[in-house]
Amino acid sequence: MERVVKLATKRCPFVSKTDATTLRRMMGAGLVRAGAHCPIMGGALPAGDQHAFTGKRGFKSHSKHMAKEPSLEEIHLKAGVSDRSSGMCRHAQAVKEAATKPDEVASIHQETLPGAARQAYGVSPAGAPRFDYETFYEEELQKKLRDKSYRYFNNINRLAHEYPLAHLADPNTRVQVWCSNDYLNMGGHKKVSDAMHRCIDKYGGGAGGTRNIAGHNQHAMRLEESIADLHLKPSALIFGSCYVANDATLSTLGRKLPNCVFLSDEMNHASMIHGIRNSRCEKIIFKHNNLADLEAKLASLPINRPKVIAFESIYSMSGNVAPISEICDLAKKYGALTFLDEVHAVGMYGPRGGGVAEETPGLLDKVDIITGTLAKSYGCVGGYIAGSSRLVDMIRSLAPGFIFTTSLPPHVMVGALTAIEHLKTSNVEREQQRSAVRRVKQSLSEIGIPVLSNDTHIVPAMVGDAEIAKLASDSLLQEHHIYVQSINSPTVNVGTERLRITPTPAHNTEKYVQSLTGAMDQVWRKYKVSRLDGWANRGIDVGRLCKFPVLPFSTSGL
Amino acid sequence: MERVVKLATKRCPFVSKTDATTLRRMMGAGLVRAGAHCPIMGGALPAGDQHAFTGKRGFKSHSKHMAKEPSLEEIHLKAGVSDRSSGMCRHAQAVKEAATKPDEVASIHQETLPGAARQAYGVSPAGAPRFDYETFYEEELQKKLRDKSYRYFNNINRLAHEYPLAHLADPNTRVQVWCSNDYLNMGGHKKVSDAMHRCIDKYGGGAGGTRNIAGHNQHAMRLEESIADLHLKPSALIFGSCYVANDATLSTLGRKLPNCVFLSDEMNHASMIHGIRNSRCEKIIFKHNNLADLEAKLASLPINRPKVIAFESIYSMSGNVAPISEICDLAKKYGALTFLDEVHAVGMYGPRGGGVAEETPGLLDKVDIITGTLAKSYGCVGGYIAGSSRLVDMIRSLAPGFIFTTSLPPHVMVGALTAIEHLKTSNVEREQQRSAVRRVKQSLSEIGIPVLSNDTHIVPAMVGDAEIAKLASDSLLQEHHIYVQSINSPTVNVGTERLRITPTPAHNTEKYVQSLTGAMDQVWRKYKVSRLDGWANRGIDVGRLCKFPVLPFSTSGL
Repeated sequence: MERVVKLATKRCPFVSKTDATTLRRMMGAGLVRAGAHCPIMGGALPAGDQHAFTGKRGFKSHSKHMAKEPSLEEIHLKAGVSDRSSGMCRHAQAVKEAATKPDEVASIHQETLPGAARQAYGVSPAGAPRFDYETFYEEELQKKLRDKSYRYFNNINRLAHEYPLAHLADPNTRVQVWCSNDYLNMGGHKKVSDAMHRCIDKYGGGAGGTRNIAGHNQHAMRLEESIADLHLKPSALIFGSCYVANDATLSTLGRKLPNCVFLSDEMNHASMIHGIRNSRCEKIIFKHNNLADLEAKLASLPINRPKVIAFESIYSMSGNVAPISEICDLAKKYGALTFLDEVHAVGMYGPRGGGVAEETPGLLDKVDIITGTLAKSYGCVGGYIAGSSRLVDMIRSLAPGFIFTTSLPPHVMVGALTAIEHLKTSNVEREQQRSAVRRVKQSLSEIGIPVLSNDTHIVPAMVGDAEIAKLASDSLLQEHHIYVQSINSPTVNVGTERLRITPTPAHNTEKYVQSLTGAMDQVWRKYKVSRLDGWANRGIDVGRLCKFPVLPFSTSGL
Repeated sequence: MERVVKLATKRCPFVSKTDATTLRRMMGAGLVRAGAHCPIMGGALPAGDQHAFTGKRGFKSHSKHMAKEPSLEEIHLKAGVSDRSSGMCRHAQAVKEAATKPDEVASIHQETLPGAARQAYGVSPAGAPRFDYETFYEEELQKKLRDKSYRYFNNINRLAHEYPLAHLADPNTRVQVWCSNDYLNMGGHKKVSDAMHRCIDKYGGGAGGTRNIAGHNQHAMRLEESIADLHLKPSALIFGSCYVANDATLSTLGRKLPNCVFLSDEMNHASMIHGIRNSRCEKIIFKHNNLADLEAKLASLPINRPKVIAFESIYSMSGNVAPISEICDLAKKYGALTFLDEVHAVGMYGPRGGGVAEETPGLLDKVDIITGTLAKSYGCVGGYIAGSSRLVDMIRSLAPGFIFTTSLPPHVMVGALTAIEHLKTSNVEREQQRSAVRRVKQSLSEIGIPVLSNDTHIVPAMVGDAEIAKLASDSLLQEHHIYVQSINSPTVNVGTERLRITPTPAHNTEKYVQSLTGAMDQVWRKYKVSRLDGWANRGIDVGRLCKFPVLPFSTSGL
């Protein structure tokens, strides 16, 4: 079988150029029948190998050979995992309860996965039973339970007048939230809520239509003007989220630019991965923040071929910062567009909150397309792109994810506009946040908690073990009323599991910093988690310079 | 060349099973070189034909043979077109101004599309210039200007305390909005805005994280419980929009279900078309609401093959209603899942606003997956799915469009929850809306305005000509202060262009109905638009029974 696949991959232009997902979809009886006509495949395929295409086992083993792109599940798994019981849905509750009793799990598993239904997943003869969808769903869920990637959501109700506190299901409990992406507490800022209140009273709770039909208004226009000004670009466009902004813009660029190829940083966010995937263009992954690798890959492409370099300014799980200026120089040299995601930077970096690119004079001009969010440091919801007038107008005119969806409510746009304008001139929040970040990094380092070095507001406390990271997170919440989500593989590499802490201005007091430090100290003791000296014994000086190959850009603390 | 393509399509399993878009992406010099090794293609391809693969003309003519799926642009064009000048972006303004002066258009076009840049779109030799992105964007925009599909957004600011009135750019002007999808004026309902105000004060303006990291809360849980209850399903899941809900759910189902095939109504919304496309599964389009065609296509598939029938309850541009029960019966007979989009029905149909499926006792149980929006009759923003616990939990666990995006703000979820719960028991809004719809249909029919017959709240006033539909819409706004968007091809068939009117409870007065009727009477006179008798002379009785083949399900008025 392997010989045939190798032969076909080498010689048949369709096999070699078809992506893994498409190939997998094609593996059916019809294909095998058709394949018998092919002088390469038909002649080379012995009967046993043909059969191997049709059954479940064959499907699986074959897909292993083909899988170059990550599967949906693999990408999904990159999101990190939390296994706690509060706030989960009813079915999740039942599944989790069952999962705590091994005998019942086995019995559920046997009940829900009869042999006949399993066979029904593959190609089977006429007269076979109907496909059993519920059993299939159950098997997918069981897979996630088995590999520990099944998620249990926590019921966290952040309190605007008590940031960083939230209540759990019981409205009288209080926990400290140390992992929210409302980085500057702007969601609870009085200017923002006042603007929202006024707008709801005058214009109601929703836009009432798409931008083309009754949903375009002065609020959208003002917000887009403010965003364009923020990034010193001629034009901007709002989407329902930055996931949609990235997905819609990249997939539309890829579909329209002839023979486009994407160069994508290996640590890029799922929204970019999916936008590129949905464009169906060629994708070349370059090593994280690695200019030499990027240049080698750019140099291998024809200079006149349209190409898009997609990357982030700050990578959310490590706090790594991209060499934006150098990437733009390479883009210019090799005729590529730059697509820069500033989601974890806008509001917080640059003199007016214009992101990391704003910190270097003249750099905003060198970036072609900047994307950002209204849902993190601006405290609301929504996403956007900013770029040249023609680029923005083309996306506005062609991207289905923009065209066919209701506009954001007027008051949400007004709230975001208020936050953006406020942060263009106010440094109070940024200074308070930086102070809180410095305090936390300092305080944790004093007790030897290994904080990954970076220049940003993201404080990754390294644990180095998936199970312990989860236990540590659980213990912090349940015993210390401190909520920090644990981040496990494959979001981060195995052995680099961590707690991702994001101090906000509201955390900038000795009380909160000591509360976190004390709790982490106890949890580190309880689970015997490695401290700096433990990592040093393994030859890694986490606190000064990260030696993980995926994090080459880290330097000193913020 | 054609002979070779035919031969390959017939005999090579990879050519015949690869979709048009993928094939188009593969058409490059590398493929031709590789193809020379193929015993079918290599032997059959004469030198001239090989060359035809590599140039722009060859690419275009080849793609014509292959194009089975609509292009992005074709789908885009389905959204309807509005060409007005207020509220457009700066670039659009410049382009439109230029477009009014033919000489300048020609000169812009020549300036921006030099021969060298045009050649750069195709495969060209090393040493060619860098790709000219700005010129490419400009050409795409020029295409849309030339085919009249370029959109100019109107600045419409709907006033919550003056529905159905809005102001334009000047806050002192007033226009009547007759085409909003805030169908029941719930966006301005006091209960909704009060709930939003209270929630903003307590919980702030944004969720601050994804559902997995700090963004899950009691508001999401309560809203999902309310939605599940609305559709009598065990579980529900909220997304940022119903575009995302449809896209994420269909693409995830297609990627996970082995060898899945979609059966898609030909009039389906872009969100479903793109969800199916992004799954990369086989898609079979069935004739609009045509049970015989659907059954024939279902019967041609193996009974054990996973299949999903995707359709809408009410089609937004015609008001057509799907035969939901009969489609579910076919699904059961042939082992298919049913995926029903109730976006234009929830809140308005069924005793509790559960949609068209709720109107037939027992029918909700027969539908597997129901999707809906919080942005139309519920007056806020967001979308959702409802279905079995396992299905919803699988989508929750695997769909990137759900996982990797910030939750809706708590107050938006509370506003939507308030609207849903209110409309579960209150019939006032539905009765007022139906009364307004009856009045408008009656009043327009009395003066012979041809309203397409349907059983719903959508009032399509037939014009039958693209240019006149646009002129009529412009004239209504500019001369009569009445805003109704015109709907042109390819959103609707050529010759069936229309104004889509959606009366709300706020329109249910003699004053508003007479104002609309009087204005339309004048506009119909001004542009000599056909009335009922004009259509009757062409053998079409629009007012009683629609004879367009695309609208077989219409019966009498609402």
